[in-house]
Amino acid sequence: MPQTTITIATRGQGLYEFTHEAQAFVRGNSDGEGLLTVFVRHTSCSLLIQENADPDVKRDLDAFFRRLVPPSSDPSMRWIVHTQEGPDDMPAHIKAALTQVSIGIPVARGRMVLGTWQGLYLFEHRDRPHRREIVLHLGM
Amino acid sequence: MPQTTITIATRGQGLYEFTHEAQAFVRGNSDGEGLLTVFVRHTSCSLLIQENADPDVKRDLDAFFRRLVPPSSDPSMRWIVHTQEGPDDMPAHIKAALTQVSIGIPVARGRMVLGTWQGLYLFEHRDRPHRREIVLHLGM
Amino acid sequence: MPQTTITIATRGQGLYEFTHEAQAFVRGNSDGEGLLTVFVRHTSCSLLIQENADPDVKRDLDAFFRRLVPPSSDPSMRWIVHTQEGPDDMPAHIKAALTQVSIGIPVARGRMVLGTWQGLYLFEHRDRPHRREIVLHLGM
Repeated sequence: MPQTTITIATRGQGLYEFTHEAQAFVRGNSDGEGLLTVFVRHTSCSLLIQENADPDVKRDLDAFFRRLVPPSSDPSMRWIVHTQEGPDDMPAHIKAALTQVSIGIPVARGRMVLGTWQGLYLFEHRDRPHRREIVLHLGM
Repeated sequence: MPQTTITIATRGQGLYEFTHEAQAFVRGNSDGEGLLTVFVRHTSCSLLIQENADPDVKRDLDAFFRRLVPPSSDPSMRWIVHTQEGPDDMPAHIKAALTQVSIGIPVARGRMVLGTWQGLYLFEHRDRPHRREIVLHLGM
Repeated sequence: MPQTTITIATRGQGLYEFTHEAQAFVRGNSDGEGLLTVFVRHTSCSLLIQENADPDVKRDLDAFFRRLVPPSSDPSMRWIVHTQEGPDDMPAHIKAALTQVSIGIPVARGRMVLGTWQGLYLFEHRDRPHRREIVLHLGM
């Protein structure tokens, strides 16, 4: 059961693709079937499988979540109590809750069974740069 | 580690149950414990485990997501950039991000450990008919 | 492939941490690597990995979901059809759909690889007390 941790350096809110890093880990450890579990060790960013064809999809996704969960400095978010880590912190936790911190992807013939347009993304919800740890676990 | 792909033909937005197909695959390959991973290979539909008793629950779920994420032709969604694949496409990606593309379900005595009222659904977010591929992976 | 079911007694909406119960199960069954799958057998509560440092984060998360999905007695929710199980029931199904019923967590050296601030929670969406069953499956 191979396992590794990769680190992604983020520079503000948005989607950061790491499909190739995950695929390289799978290929280096399997030529058959299995299950890749991708797990992010943080509560203010998350994971997403989404379209990697048109970059506008990434921008629109990010924009939707900003509109659904504005910063706690926004008049509509005055009810937020947890503000001491900055106006982007509590919204980051909420956006992480609305998406996922863990995704399981079946592997066949040493490759993730992603569809043609599916890419694997870290979804950063904080404004400032962060180093994000993602655990990759290849099991049966 | 048995693996198979099933195809569901959808006819517009809504929930399509496939609990029986998944259960048949599990039963055909296990009489003990394991883990079924269900993975959908698309970015404009998703997966959901939900109540399968009252059909109104399905309709209300679908209605909620349509209200939270209206078509890009709706005045409230004018900020959407990715519109060239139709007014239902970008909302479909957003709804997929708000739900899941992968669900892991433990198996005991050759059956998924679903609760009494839990059913397994494909959640179609596009208006037109589609053929959707779901990978079932039975592992340990 | 060890498997067990734990029960959590809830007393109204909110987050109930069970990180220690899950960790005890993992430690009792592994001193190496593996994959813990956590699965909740209900459709009106869900699972969440979130910050366990400041209790205000839990309260703000709960408040956000109550605002996004008010009870069906709320004037903004008059479109809901499934009301016979109470004004908190259909919103509970919707909140479960917006979060998760299953989470996979890699295990290393007999411990879940949770980040420093990550805790594992049952997210109860009903008002009245419930006994909630969670299946823990430790696989490879």
